[in-house]
Amino acid sequence: MAVKLGPNRYGKAQTRLVHVVKDGPVHHIKDVNVSTSLSGDMEAVHLTGDNAAVLPTDTQKNTVYAFAGKHGIGQIEEFALLLAGHFAGAQPSIHHARVEIEEYAWRREGPHSFAREGGEVRTCVVHRDRDGRASVVSGLKDLVLLNSTGSEFHGYAVDEYTTLPPAADRVLATAVEARWRHTGGTSSYGSSYERVRRCLVEAFTGTYSRSLQQTLYAMGERVLATCEEICEVRLALPNKHHIAVDLSPFGLANDNEVFFAADRPYGLIEGSVLREDAPDAGFAWE
Amino acid sequence: MAVKLGPNRYGKAQTRLVHVVKDGPVHHIKDVNVSTSLSGDMEAVHLTGDNAAVLPTDTQKNTVYAFAGKHGIGQIEEFALLLAGHFAGAQPSIHHARVEIEEYAWRREGPHSFAREGGEVRTCVVHRDRDGRASVVSGLKDLVLLNSTGSEFHGYAVDEYTTLPPAADRVLATAVEARWRHTGGTSSYGSSYERVRRCLVEAFTGTYSRSLQQTLYAMGERVLATCEEICEVRLALPNKHHIAVDLSPFGLANDNEVFFAADRPYGLIEGSVLREDAPDAGFAWE
Amino acid sequence: MAVKLGPNRYGKAQTRLVHVVKDGPVHHIKDVNVSTSLSGDMEAVHLTGDNAAVLPTDTQKNTVYAFAGKHGIGQIEEFALLLAGHFAGAQPSIHHARVEIEEYAWRREGPHSFAREGGEVRTCVVHRDRDGRASVVSGLKDLVLLNSTGSEFHGYAVDEYTTLPPAADRVLATAVEARWRHTGGTSSYGSSYERVRRCLVEAFTGTYSRSLQQTLYAMGERVLATCEEICEVRLALPNKHHIAVDLSPFGLANDNEVFFAADRPYGLIEGSVLREDAPDAGFAWE
Amino acid sequence: MAVKLGPNRYGKAQTRLVHVVKDGPVHHIKDVNVSTSLSGDMEAVHLTGDNAAVLPTDTQKNTVYAFAGKHGIGQIEEFALLLAGHFAGAQPSIHHARVEIEEYAWRREGPHSFAREGGEVRTCVVHRDRDGRASVVSGLKDLVLLNSTGSEFHGYAVDEYTTLPPAADRVLATAVEARWRHTGGTSSYGSSYERVRRCLVEAFTGTYSRSLQQTLYAMGERVLATCEEICEVRLALPNKHHIAVDLSPFGLANDNEVFFAADRPYGLIEGSVLREDAPDAGFAWE
Repeated sequence: MAVKLGPNRYGKAQTRLVHVVKDGPVHHIKDVNVSTSLSGDMEAVHLTGDNAAVLPTDTQKNTVYAFAGKHGIGQIEEFALLLAGHFAGAQPSIHHARVEIEEYAWRREGPHSFAREGGEVRTCVVHRDRDGRASVVSGLKDLVLLNSTGSEFHGYAVDEYTTLPPAADRVLATAVEARWRHTGGTSSYGSSYERVRRCLVEAFTGTYSRSLQQTLYAMGERVLATCEEICEVRLALPNKHHIAVDLSPFGLANDNEVFFAADRPYGLIEGSVLREDAPDAGFAWE
Repeated sequence: MAVKLGPNRYGKAQTRLVHVVKDGPVHHIKDVNVSTSLSGDMEAVHLTGDNAAVLPTDTQKNTVYAFAGKHGIGQIEEFALLLAGHFAGAQPSIHHARVEIEEYAWRREGPHSFAREGGEVRTCVVHRDRDGRASVVSGLKDLVLLNSTGSEFHGYAVDEYTTLPPAADRVLATAVEARWRHTGGTSSYGSSYERVRRCLVEAFTGTYSRSLQQTLYAMGERVLATCEEICEVRLALPNKHHIAVDLSPFGLANDNEVFFAADRPYGLIEGSVLREDAPDAGFAWE
Repeated sequence: MAVKLGPNRYGKAQTRLVHVVKDGPVHHIKDVNVSTSLSGDMEAVHLTGDNAAVLPTDTQKNTVYAFAGKHGIGQIEEFALLLAGHFAGAQPSIHHARVEIEEYAWRREGPHSFAREGGEVRTCVVHRDRDGRASVVSGLKDLVLLNSTGSEFHGYAVDEYTTLPPAADRVLATAVEARWRHTGGTSSYGSSYERVRRCLVEAFTGTYSRSLQQTLYAMGERVLATCEEICEVRLALPNKHHIAVDLSPFGLANDNEVFFAADRPYGLIEGSVLREDAPDAGFAWE
Repeated sequence: MAVKLGPNRYGKAQTRLVHVVKDGPVHHIKDVNVSTSLSGDMEAVHLTGDNAAVLPTDTQKNTVYAFAGKHGIGQIEEFALLLAGHFAGAQPSIHHARVEIEEYAWRREGPHSFAREGGEVRTCVVHRDRDGRASVVSGLKDLVLLNSTGSEFHGYAVDEYTTLPPAADRVLATAVEARWRHTGGTSSYGSSYERVRRCLVEAFTGTYSRSLQQTLYAMGERVLATCEEICEVRLALPNKHHIAVDLSPFGLANDNEVFFAADRPYGLIEGSVLREDAPDAGFAWE
């Protein structure tokens, strides 16, 4: 039997890091969750347990904390690029680094006091290899949006298993998971993020929707029309079903006012919107 | 062997209800999770399976939806009182009702568009019995607060298992779970909630803390000093440990700037603050 | 305004501890989650931040690990009693200790190899005060049981909100959460646990059920009839609804064969079964 | 601006289905979670909201239940192939179907009584397109394994951020997530699953490990050496760190007996092992 090692990577997942920047009595806070993955000449460790090529995951964790102390964090994409650049050249055996960061937002409540925002989580995935190639994907997740009207669903294909009645008016709700690829280096990841986020929200709320697919495309298109630095948007939109409760047994009308918010099952619409001339994605989405 | 039935209750847990109120093109939304529990003459059903005394949990769920359609929701305490009053007299066999509601906040993004706030969840537990007695406990949970300085911890008892060094400056962070008991009927549960919430946040952020217990007491005291309608506050404050990372192996100082945010274990401080003349709690906390 | 401190306690929650006992090449493993809470003369720390009476939660954690090293764990009730006895006398200011333990089961796969069982979690809550009073409550949770027939539900009270049709045959499923109080010291907590667990399963599976309340009582009664060392059983049984899917639109019958397993809402039946002569519970259930 | 629709799919996620097969008084149970995704001519729905090509996710859910009623479930791979085959030809606009199933195991407790096993979850992902191409990936997740000795870690690369001491003896624990690709049609998916599962457990427990990578490769290699029907194995192995607690401050030794089981961060080792002559994977892993 001839067997071989295929694609592989290893790293430290979910290093929880809170960084406080002190501007006299006024403090600033960054709260992130960093996952690093390295790959390279890893035949020996897999086949014989020879660890000479392995930069331990414990060292990766230490590096995350040390880099925060040395450089601060700034925008998560920048911190990820810094870490990935370091790791991709850290050892002759390491050829490639992937760094994924989640950021949790906090609201100021005083000079050194904060309350955690519980809404969407900002994300990024950065790749760098030792030849200098790099990619940056930014994103967000858990952004829960709802339109209480302005959504229809009808005219769909019908077969012997169809029971769904057409809907002329329905609630449309989702928890947006969006990731977008930067064409090259973006000068300000912070303002870019705010711009993309606003596009996503405005396209969702502003689109009169005949299907969640249509809304998905409108969201991606809006981002690309507004943000020159982005070449591709990938969206995963669960259809969080809100089912109007039949109140007629109780002599009551329900003009789309009383809903059961269902957990499972849920629709799931996934799609990508990209520029015609988007450069090849390479390893960006891995 | 002589065995008997002890305290018991039954009901429908976690009825998810979204209610949309339409003011022309402008919609308003209430998103709640309702749990009802009834008790009364339940010997027969337990001992023989005779269901004559049982108002099914399915009917309880229907009633929640029907009441939302008929009366709207308003403040969750009011909706809970309405439901509990109905159930406590719904059948001769039902003597007592407990209604618990969680409310999830949404932020307006358009006339009929909303984004879910992810921060604290507003809660209430209401009891009513068929003799007219009632209690209202309001609350919140998952309010995550952090002071990046202004907290010490030293002067504690020491024994043979002590290794903790005293701290002259530390991060203090918690996820507030607070419940507060209303003395009687409160005229405006909405403004009362906002007042209590503000007291909790301000006492946490404004207290120079020598222990989380001191902060807990300050939070409860502030509520009672400010809110005449409240007679008791119960708090559960996890001490979400932020551990300063030792960066000295890397030649770096760490002046309380780089922290590991730990998951488990965590400190847990629980306590009640109440008025000297608080009326007996009865079943309020059950 | 006269305000006072009410009931309070503090401690370290969820200290995760794995203990390996080595019998030559054959190892044994105990995997537990320990939460300790202390109470006593805690006025000063709450009112002024004076920590002299406080045995830090960090020290409590250290003690858990040190006691595991010194004494091993054995049955969780015994380890909890040992810890609680230590803490209740650890400082003049500490009057009372509560120790809660969860235990996760592992299945042997080799002399020093194990696979985690994912079923029910064994639990206990132990109290001890410095006057020597003690209580032991054992328990389990997440024991998911299902009868695919042998369950009816009809003859219930009907009102204007009733739509549920009577069921002559239904699936009955629950996730058992059970806690039981020992009358005094029990000689073998391990065999007692196995006995109680078997009673719970056999009473659930062996009872022809007209309501989940009836099943609950049968489960408690079976434990008390079989286990002399137990004086009270408390059960919380969610009714995990399995809803037969209407397949008639597709020309198919569904003789209770195809079910939608719903998440929320769910019924929740809670009750206690106890001996007529059960001693006063004191602080056992706190 | 020229923008286009990229890869997309849509479907119903997490249709929870319990199927009871009745063999006289003896019942059998299958408990699954089915997610379906379709793709094809979906330009119009994205660009204009024209739903003519869309087979609604509600219909997909109905089909899952109807097929369970009509055909039973059998092995999850077979049920997924049946569903995918139906969907891939259900409408002219649908070209491709992906079906993912999770199966939860139950243990018999009586003729019609069951207790849910809480261990690993069996999984599969099946693809079929309308041209007849198909792929089957089977798998499992949440299989938690632990060796209390027989694991070292040393000889690794060292840099300025290294603080980890070499380990001559450590606990090695992981939660196995494994997926394996079938070369073609497999005659018995049930016995194949059991064979693969046994290989994974035996290779983990039987490998004297110098790194988790070595163990990962051994697990994949064992599967391929034993199971002719499999051509590729992909593994994701979190390194669930068990950190020996320093008991020396308490005058106690800790010979790898007392461990803190950490939550985060954790190592994460991901890799693929495949036959030299494995056929092209096509869409199998999507």
